Amino acid sequence: MRIGELSRRTGVSVPTIKYYVREGLLPAGQLTSPNQASYDETHTRRLRLIRALIDVGGLSVAGVREVIEAVDDPAQPVHMMLGSVAEQVVPQYEGEDGSEQGEQLTAARKTVAELIARRGWRSYPEAPAAEALAVALAALENAGHGAFAAAVLDDYATAAERVGQVDVEFVARNVVREELVESVVVGTVLGDAVFAALRRLAHIDASGRVFGLGE
Amino acid sequence: MRIGELSRRTGVSVPTIKYYVREGLLPAGQLTSPNQASYDETHTRRLRLIRALIDVGGLSVAGVREVIEAVDDPAQPVHMMLGSVAEQVVPQYEGEDGSEQGEQLTAARKTVAELIARRGWRSYPEAPAAEALAVALAALENAGHGAFAAAVLDDYATAAERVGQVDVEFVARNVVREELVESVVVGTVLGDAVFAALRRLAHIDASGRVFGLGE
Repeated sequence: MRIGELSRRTGVSVPTIKYYVREGLLPAGQLTSPNQASYDETHTRRLRLIRALIDVGGLSVAGVREVIEAVDDPAQPVHMMLGSVAEQVVPQYEGEDGSEQGEQLTAARKTVAELIARRGWRSYPEAPAAEALAVALAALENAGHGAFAAAVLDDYATAAERVGQVDVEFVARNVVREELVESVVVGTVLGDAVFAALRRLAHIDASGRVFGLGE
Repeated sequence: MRIGELSRRTGVSVPTIKYYVREGLLPAGQLTSPNQASYDETHTRRLRLIRALIDVGGLSVAGVREVIEAVDDPAQPVHMMLGSVAEQVVPQYEGEDGSEQGEQLTAARKTVAELIARRGWRSYPEAPAAEALAVALAALENAGHGAFAAAVLDDYATAAERVGQVDVEFVARNVVREELVESVVVGTVLGDAVFAALRRLAHIDASGRVFGLGE
């Protein structure tokens, strides 16, 4: 297909498509004449992935390039490829700047390492998700709610194990590497939003039971 | 105590404390001389709540005022008070603008209503969390991943029920209304960050088991 058709099918404008080609994110089309290139399903699929990474995952072009290099490297095992994708979509808790959290952060990192050991989770020391968890725990401690973290952490971990297992089983249905990666990014980011909303609905339900509905 | 001491204890600057008093968020101190006012533990506690609402909850001053009115109204049952707090800390999925999501959003709202009925959750039709869930589901559908939502929704809901129950049991240990509200805001917002990080750690673990660790 021509570039105009590719643009219509994917909803990505022609200048943006050309920009992705220049940036090396999208392979150039096959030249059919000096001024005309032809695109196929591999381009459609790649564009879907790029848009998911940028629009849903919030990745920069540099982040997209890193993910695509991992996707395009057939020597990279799936687990490692997904790891490099996951590192790009770490949840960021945007709180106060952490200048006063030095001590709490050190303690929180220890809590996280103990949790990972206690649950028997395969992880690796510099996993950004482990650091993100430590930052959130330090923020709780800093806000005077360290007891909350201590009380709920293992129940949260049990729930996260269930959700994480379901997520990975679902994305594993994909066989094409690009579709697998796209599904991981979309599922990770939008899955957060889905779970956060469900948790609030569960709060309304539990609050009614615990405190009574009032009149 | 004097305003300088209140500032030191809470970490809130004197001008900010005066601003909160002018805005009606914090009761004025008791005048001990024409130019001097005295503050007590009720001010400390109220300032902690205001800072939690603004720094952690991301509320506007208008939002803080609404929460504080609910806290200060003894006729308002706890469940209703918490409901008005919860409406201020709804998760927002910041995706593409939803202009094309009209049809998907209508379908997603139906999915949410059916889910709430199926789970037997006490909710109310205009709950912002229900709308937030519908928006996230519509975004998944729009990204071509509606199958993900359909496959995982009930497992997510089961996990959210567990987390929500633990959350509410924990915050219910507070008896002072202000502390209860503070704990709900901090626990809701930072709880999202904690769970999102745990979910990613669970992904690393599950991915290693499902795909193999590679070499």
